Amino acid sequence: MHQAGYDCTVSYVDSSGVKKAVVLLSGGLDSATSLMIARRDGFACHAISFDYNQRHRLELGCARAVASAGGAVDHRIVRIDLSRSGGFGRSALTDDIAVPKDKPQGGTIPVTYVPARNAIFLAIALGYAEVVGAFDIYIGVNAVDYSGYPDCRGEFIEAFERLANLATAAGAEGRGRFIIHAPLLRMSKAQIIKTGLELGVDYSLTTSCYDPAPNGSGCGKCEACRLRLAGFASAGVADPASYQR
Amino acid sequence: MHQAGYDCTVSYVDSSGVKKAVVLLSGGLDSATSLMIARRDGFACHAISFDYNQRHRLELGCARAVASAGGAVDHRIVRIDLSRSGGFGRSALTDDIAVPKDKPQGGTIPVTYVPARNAIFLAIALGYAEVVGAFDIYIGVNAVDYSGYPDCRGEFIEAFERLANLATAAGAEGRGRFIIHAPLLRMSKAQIIKTGLELGVDYSLTTSCYDPAPNGSGCGKCEACRLRLAGFASAGVADPASYQR
Repeated sequence: MHQAGYDCTVSYVDSSGVKKAVVLLSGGLDSATSLMIARRDGFACHAISFDYNQRHRLELGCARAVASAGGAVDHRIVRIDLSRSGGFGRSALTDDIAVPKDKPQGGTIPVTYVPARNAIFLAIALGYAEVVGAFDIYIGVNAVDYSGYPDCRGEFIEAFERLANLATAAGAEGRGRFIIHAPLLRMSKAQIIKTGLELGVDYSLTTSCYDPAPNGSGCGKCEACRLRLAGFASAGVADPASYQR
Repeated sequence: MHQAGYDCTVSYVDSSGVKKAVVLLSGGLDSATSLMIARRDGFACHAISFDYNQRHRLELGCARAVASAGGAVDHRIVRIDLSRSGGFGRSALTDDIAVPKDKPQGGTIPVTYVPARNAIFLAIALGYAEVVGAFDIYIGVNAVDYSGYPDCRGEFIEAFERLANLATAAGAEGRGRFIIHAPLLRMSKAQIIKTGLELGVDYSLTTSCYDPAPNGSGCGKCEACRLRLAGFASAGVADPASYQR
């Protein structure tokens, strides 16, 4: 795992000399920043997003805009139904469970946790990386100003990286070594925003709200909105997102 | 990882006293055997199969029959398009690449390998386990009479088990410990068949062929058919599957 994400000495370069990465893109501010870090690291970026029947599916339109503005060479949206209708559910992000609007209680994993979501997303991204010929995968997880999700921790990313090199033909045959880049892991939200602005991220294209209005404006009260607003305030920058009054 | 799969001392028992497992079911003989081992181990089995736009999708009908005959409490088929049309592909199991009909060359991973397939399937099964309240996952991988797929090896299963306990709320909160059971890992195909027959597996319901005829009969020549036929011959039992003449 590369927390900083800037050391590309072992990155995969294909026969055409292009250094490819797969970048997980949600439409939120973290993954938009992660994309521009991957671009700065010199990668041709294959963006991947997931239509998992999330309630805030509006984010996929943002992901499209972010991929395009960020110069991704392509952008794929993979469908996998993780809601109750697909036999999964049990999360406020996919089902008819209220998104909490009060301050989170520390030490508990919130109801917005989606079972094994990042393991599922990274596994699919890994297969996609093998198909496009990439050994580098970028994910915008963050373990500082975050919600306490288990699959946003460094130990999880390290365990996935180890798995990736055992799970694949490309890894088993020694054609290269998969690296899971989590460049935001130890950054505060304010640091992420400042880094993104330096790299030209247009945060007006991003959405963070778990419970947006039909026009896409944020509720301003869910944990994702709270973390975003506090991050912009701490960075001393106006948040270009629109919020419900 | 439990290779033998018989030690259930740390298995999860829910508040109703039911010991639940998620069992990956392909419709083939290995996973049908794995299901009956899980049943013998005392689990209420939640079967899960994948419609990944495989060419041999006929296997899903077999999976339905196997789940029903094997007494699974439910059976879910998850859709995730891993073919070229979904942006993946690069495998003879999903795309217009000929399934090899000659004897395999040792030491190479065959074109029937699907990029990161078992990592994707296990990650989805993990999410499903968390949803249904299971900590035990059975997968019928085998590293003896097998095709050399990297994601059928013990190291892969061990790495996934480690990941599973970091990736999930259930694992992170210490509510239990996920175990990936690979009871067939070190068995020969003949041993698998003998074990399954002792446990009442009806192999006439299963299919193994990578390139079946429209009526479901096997080609008899692909590696999956070869391994199956050799296994039945070595076990001294007639294979109830039908083959093309």
